[in-house]
Amino acid sequence: MALSLIFLLFFIFTTTIPTTLSNPIFFTTKTYQSLIQTKSPTPKITYKTQFFPQHLDHFTFQPKSSNIFYQKYLINSQYWDEGPQHRAPIFVYTGNEGDIEWFASNTGFMLDVAPKFQALLVFIEHRFYGESLPFGKDSSKSAETLGYLNSQQALADFAVLIRSLKHNLSAEASPVVVLGGSYGGMLAAWFRLKYPHIAVGALASSAPILQFDDITPWTSFYDAVSKDFKDASLNCFNVIKGSWDELQAVPTQKEGLLELGRTFRACKDLQSIYSVRDWLWSAFVYTAMVNYPTQANFMMPLPAYPVEEMCKIIDGFPQEANKLTKVFSAASLYYNYSSTEKCFDIENGTSAHGLNGWDWQACTEMVMPMSCSNEGMFPPSTFNYKDFSDQCIKKYGVTPRPHWITTEFGGDRIEQVLERFGSNIIFSSGMKDPWSRGSVLKNISASVVALVTQRGAHHLDLRFATKEDPDWLIEQRRQEVEIIQRWIDEYHSGYK
Amino acid sequence: MALSLIFLLFFIFTTTIPTTLSNPIFFTTKTYQSLIQTKSPTPKITYKTQFFPQHLDHFTFQPKSSNIFYQKYLINSQYWDEGPQHRAPIFVYTGNEGDIEWFASNTGFMLDVAPKFQALLVFIEHRFYGESLPFGKDSSKSAETLGYLNSQQALADFAVLIRSLKHNLSAEASPVVVLGGSYGGMLAAWFRLKYPHIAVGALASSAPILQFDDITPWTSFYDAVSKDFKDASLNCFNVIKGSWDELQAVPTQKEGLLELGRTFRACKDLQSIYSVRDWLWSAFVYTAMVNYPTQANFMMPLPAYPVEEMCKIIDGFPQEANKLTKVFSAASLYYNYSSTEKCFDIENGTSAHGLNGWDWQACTEMVMPMSCSNEGMFPPSTFNYKDFSDQCIKKYGVTPRPHWITTEFGGDRIEQVLERFGSNIIFSSGMKDPWSRGSVLKNISASVVALVTQRGAHHLDLRFATKEDPDWLIEQRRQEVEIIQRWIDEYHSGYK
Repeated sequence: MALSLIFLLFFIFTTTIPTTLSNPIFFTTKTYQSLIQTKSPTPKITYKTQFFPQHLDHFTFQPKSSNIFYQKYLINSQYWDEGPQHRAPIFVYTGNEGDIEWFASNTGFMLDVAPKFQALLVFIEHRFYGESLPFGKDSSKSAETLGYLNSQQALADFAVLIRSLKHNLSAEASPVVVLGGSYGGMLAAWFRLKYPHIAVGALASSAPILQFDDITPWTSFYDAVSKDFKDASLNCFNVIKGSWDELQAVPTQKEGLLELGRTFRACKDLQSIYSVRDWLWSAFVYTAMVNYPTQANFMMPLPAYPVEEMCKIIDGFPQEANKLTKVFSAASLYYNYSSTEKCFDIENGTSAHGLNGWDWQACTEMVMPMSCSNEGMFPPSTFNYKDFSDQCIKKYGVTPRPHWITTEFGGDRIEQVLERFGSNIIFSSGMKDPWSRGSVLKNISASVVALVTQRGAHHLDLRFATKEDPDWLIEQRRQEVEIIQRWIDEYHSGYK
Repeated sequence: MALSLIFLLFFIFTTTIPTTLSNPIFFTTKTYQSLIQTKSPTPKITYKTQFFPQHLDHFTFQPKSSNIFYQKYLINSQYWDEGPQHRAPIFVYTGNEGDIEWFASNTGFMLDVAPKFQALLVFIEHRFYGESLPFGKDSSKSAETLGYLNSQQALADFAVLIRSLKHNLSAEASPVVVLGGSYGGMLAAWFRLKYPHIAVGALASSAPILQFDDITPWTSFYDAVSKDFKDASLNCFNVIKGSWDELQAVPTQKEGLLELGRTFRACKDLQSIYSVRDWLWSAFVYTAMVNYPTQANFMMPLPAYPVEEMCKIIDGFPQEANKLTKVFSAASLYYNYSSTEKCFDIENGTSAHGLNGWDWQACTEMVMPMSCSNEGMFPPSTFNYKDFSDQCIKKYGVTPRPHWITTEFGGDRIEQVLERFGSNIIFSSGMKDPWSRGSVLKNISASVVALVTQRGAHHLDLRFATKEDPDWLIEQRRQEVEIIQRWIDEYHSGYK
């Protein structure tokens, strides 16, 4: 199951690749699938799997009482013991766009801290992902079914499930803390804002809740990726920046593509230069996201600080060498760190997945405009809402609602709004992660705080602790534990 | 138009009349309609009427872009002038279950204070009421259409409309304060909780947000009505309390009903004693709700302190007189204060309205359990969820979700939850109003406060000021203005 997860997660990124080089790659998914199918991590799950009967639509009441689906969740009560009697806390991961096992296996933080808190651990799968499919295998078949896939329905799912679970465990008096990373972090933060009566606090890791409308500059994401590479090596940055023109100059006749295919060790003859561009693009962006300080296997197996490693590869070539050769070698670190690939399936003709969930969400509510500036290492581009909208209409028949998320959840002037409203949210970020730019990076109030590390990457803090963890990461997690402990203590002291 | 409003509002009450005397009157509406059609107040509107294209479903994305309806709102900019330049505030009434003109004409407070604040005034009509009918005259025809009628969709309507309005007026920097009474007050409070980025504060008048689940004792509503009468006169209370047995003892053969009809000056022969019971019941409950300190015409034209006036009527009879004669005379104050009725249309055979909005809301989300204690003046009864649910299934095919409102909006342990979360809400109540018992009656934090008057009634503070207003009412409104001014000042001081 986990194979499809990264594929899904990928859409966070792919839907925002600017449509450059005159060939829109928006919605092109073919390049990446085969890689995912061979490289996904094996989840280590120590959870019991449960299913919960959930309302298909929380916000429209329909006569058919049969409109329920079974939502998957994982539960671990090994440290909970007599939790209800002690009002011990419940930590809930607000699942995002993928199989819940995958998030559980990449959110070791919860298992690491559970003994200290004697916490019950729960991971709730997001509707329309993993096995939580309201219409079974037809769930993503059409807009008619996908209509029920959105963040507000997901938050309501969490609320209903948590309330029911507490009731069934006689744990009504136990405080709930929600945690999540990436889109799951956005959901955790929004859940605390919308359901403060259910969660006493939220740890929102790498949660770009400000990546909407024009709150965050549209160029910031790719500028941040570029900065990661520039910080590692100016030469590396310049090589990548120059490589796109070299790629563009490849003759598109058969001979040119054949030669390009040889350079990139393509398993099959290439049909287009754009698949190579996408292949490179993804390697750089994902590597920046998972530029972890230790060896890890989130998207792909990678060494510690993989951006630096990529740049060492590029810098190791003679200055005069072909730029495409250099970037191919760098990208190979991402795609083939374990040296198991004899060739790369750069163009994968068809997607076995059909329509998918995140694509739908991006075409309806999750409109995150992005563009590439002249200063970055990617080809300059702008975000054209009209083109974006046209493609969504063409694909699903839906018109995006680009201002809906900020209407429903806010974001504009968030400091001013949350300075006097709300409490108990940690926004944790690592500045190496390009998504950090759309997150909350400064303390807003005494209890709505930002924990930012300069060298951290995409929800690094939520990963299992390792012996190699640097001090700044240990300190970030220590602060998180301290703050969560404070929420729980406050809850208990105010319990009447 | 206003004629149907009271009818609709009535359901707040009628759906909660306990099913006593072995004849369920749940959903019986026939008794009251004719009265409403002859006695409704004439709205005095100084507003411009507008219509806004609104999404039918904010929480399910469907391909059809035509799924919009036109939502009515009223706007008054006479004190606004150069409001956008001055960042002058916008006061928004969050419309409840009826024509928006009716609420505008009974919420003179906003017009009264507008000059001081140079405020723009907006009254937004609630979907499925008044002229804001998504399916035109078929809007209430079936559960299929009514499915889109609920509080969450209504709140989202307000959010989208306000945002669009501010944009169109170039008034993005103007703070918005929401105000509402009764269900509209619940919506105002919930709006501040769910959309703090859109409203800087809420004045929630007579808003029984705690009338759900078992947060508020189920007997409290009718006990409060009873207390109003007992406070006025113990004899009055005892007469009413004893009258139900006298009514129950009326022989149900033709002669008995004929005699009863004569006692109650029925225009047509009575078919059942229960219509008389409902007629009396409503008179006592509504009079308690609108037990205003000045002459008023909200539900019906009534003198100042009408409960006291009713009791004077009852107490004016010789002790030995028939109780039914006494309560008939008392109820006549409610139904015929203006002395225009020659007879009473106690049984009105058919409802011209068919299904209606509040009925639907009560059968889906607005489940407010109520019962009558032995200590009150009404026949003792219990709330039976099974019976209630069965009737909803029979009528609409829907099963109520009795815990949904508290899942979505909270309520349980509200002091603890909001002590550290949220800000800027005034819960105003008058203890003569039976709905006060389900509202927030104590300060929760420095800025989530309760303004309670002992002699106030249902959203009295929102009414136009009059020369006869007692000092405690003047003081309540003065505090409201002061607090709202503080919200606006804080907003401006924090504006960057």
